[in-house]
Amino acid sequence: MSRFFSDKFASLTPYTPGEQPRDAAYVKLNTNESPFPPSPKAVAAASKEAERLMLYSDPDERALREALAALHGLTPDEFLVTNGSDEALYFAFSAYCDDRHPAVFADITYGFYPVFAALLSLPTRVVPLREDFTVNVDDFCPAGGTVFLANPNAPTGLALSPAEIERILAANPDSVVLVDEAYVDFGAESVLPLIRRRPNLLVVQTFSKSRSMAGARLGFAAGSPELIADLNTIRCSINPYNVNRMTLAAGIGALADEEYTHRNCQTIIKTRTRVLAEMRKMGFWATESVTNFLFVRHPALSGEALYRALRERGILVRHFGTPALNDYNRITVGSDAQMDTLLGAVRSILEEKS
Amino acid sequence: MSRFFSDKFASLTPYTPGEQPRDAAYVKLNTNESPFPPSPKAVAAASKEAERLMLYSDPDERALREALAALHGLTPDEFLVTNGSDEALYFAFSAYCDDRHPAVFADITYGFYPVFAALLSLPTRVVPLREDFTVNVDDFCPAGGTVFLANPNAPTGLALSPAEIERILAANPDSVVLVDEAYVDFGAESVLPLIRRRPNLLVVQTFSKSRSMAGARLGFAAGSPELIADLNTIRCSINPYNVNRMTLAAGIGALADEEYTHRNCQTIIKTRTRVLAEMRKMGFWATESVTNFLFVRHPALSGEALYRALRERGILVRHFGTPALNDYNRITVGSDAQMDTLLGAVRSILEEKS
Repeated sequence: MSRFFSDKFASLTPYTPGEQPRDAAYVKLNTNESPFPPSPKAVAAASKEAERLMLYSDPDERALREALAALHGLTPDEFLVTNGSDEALYFAFSAYCDDRHPAVFADITYGFYPVFAALLSLPTRVVPLREDFTVNVDDFCPAGGTVFLANPNAPTGLALSPAEIERILAANPDSVVLVDEAYVDFGAESVLPLIRRRPNLLVVQTFSKSRSMAGARLGFAAGSPELIADLNTIRCSINPYNVNRMTLAAGIGALADEEYTHRNCQTIIKTRTRVLAEMRKMGFWATESVTNFLFVRHPALSGEALYRALRERGILVRHFGTPALNDYNRITVGSDAQMDTLLGAVRSILEEKS
Repeated sequence: MSRFFSDKFASLTPYTPGEQPRDAAYVKLNTNESPFPPSPKAVAAASKEAERLMLYSDPDERALREALAALHGLTPDEFLVTNGSDEALYFAFSAYCDDRHPAVFADITYGFYPVFAALLSLPTRVVPLREDFTVNVDDFCPAGGTVFLANPNAPTGLALSPAEIERILAANPDSVVLVDEAYVDFGAESVLPLIRRRPNLLVVQTFSKSRSMAGARLGFAAGSPELIADLNTIRCSINPYNVNRMTLAAGIGALADEEYTHRNCQTIIKTRTRVLAEMRKMGFWATESVTNFLFVRHPALSGEALYRALRERGILVRHFGTPALNDYNRITVGSDAQMDTLLGAVRSILEEKS
């Protein structure tokens, strides 16, 4: 930190992303990336666009918004395109929270929410989950501020139903309720179809997980044209060309190949079901995850011990050092081959232990 | 605007970027893009990376920072990589301005500075340029806040010398002085070599102009490791994966082809010199631009009239509607063929007029 840094950030602690080792020697199950390459249509579109980089990207991001609208049976002015879904979340924290509108979120959820709040000096209301990591909907009815709900939630992997979310929407008619659906394509149900009925609903999704485009940085928000206009005001006051040409093209390519996305998601779900059963057989407690990761705990092994033992064997999983999550690990569902490597390593770690 | 939008943004007016027509029918001389394609090395690197988009980009952006450090004879911890240079500017406005540290900039300069200040509710001190559009260095000695200097300045095309900037740095030892060098490669002198001697200096550059990568969105800041650490705290509290894999790869490719960049800049300078002389012959007043654009005024034609007449002939130039700039146009220096089209059109417009 320099002596010039504004006092208001004196105690700001940034978000810590999962390790991204620069060598490729690890089996990477720590950042919920897809084991499948992006659609060949996305790759081809991005590569072609690389030749035209001398021109700025379309600041209206029109073509991609049209593709999103066509896919969801909505109109382009109901969509905002962002540099990863993190950027959409940041815009929403900026637009809808202030001294009189605290940010309301669960105590165990995406670790970026408290960071955005701290960066923007926003008041927060943190809602505890139940002991079994489920959300108590009543605690958000009303919420007393702008609601940020990761659904499915991370790192728990659990989801509320659209009916439960609609109850929260109805109980907070004067507050925006943002539903962060980063993991929705692996078995939960999206509330995107509700945006016309619920003017306070903002849905955020990403191309990082189900569309294998984490490295392209592409997310979007969907909501009423008025909400999208708010977020556009923020976007165009920071970076009107927030998404580059290659990523915009890749996004359009990916949306033209929904069959590929769907097939990959089905494969992940099948692998998840198998690995979850295997890990339970080995004595793990685990949530009934509807995402591309597992949230697990072993009675004989701390979360940190398992993380370290796996790392020594060349496998990266995520361990969060906070008190509530200390016993747990979040493990990405990768390819069947990766998961067999994981299961073999876990088995040998448990055998050494006993 | 929705009824949920925070009051603090009630009067926020976003930045208006130059038109980006979706059809390619125009001769585009309105957003200072390069007429040359990106280096083949940049294109090849980006295309190759498109196949690996399922993995997040390196949040440390290490490889590109190493390439920048090697080019400038500095170390990687003296560089920050951003999603276009606009993002670097936004981080600096966040990090170094607050109620006690106003943002100080010229009245005629990059139009985004007042937008950042408005978005972040920052006090400003606006310093008038002289009548001939030059900066009066004394007005910044001291500046009474955090200084944002576009050098060369836009849309005037005029630059201060390193000695003049060093005078501003010396007169403001307790304030950050940010020098925004978006256009520096077309004939001005960079102050990047001063960062070790001046701990309050932050230099921002972009790959958009001289490296033909506007559509890739890539910029960087250079400064002391302490200043860079501040900006990293902001970056990692908003979007730790702020630059995508393809753009990072393209940046490394472009830096491996400095000969190509240098040749293109020399061509632009040669074309600029020729077009400037031609336009002066036609009666235009123009600054002695050291950038890839011209800043011109014709005694017989308003800025808006020229803009409209050129647009009708399929040529886009930039017209800023503010009172101080109303008589002027900013015209990008494109290829020789594009500029011949422009000169022909201007000639016929002036003939029709007389």
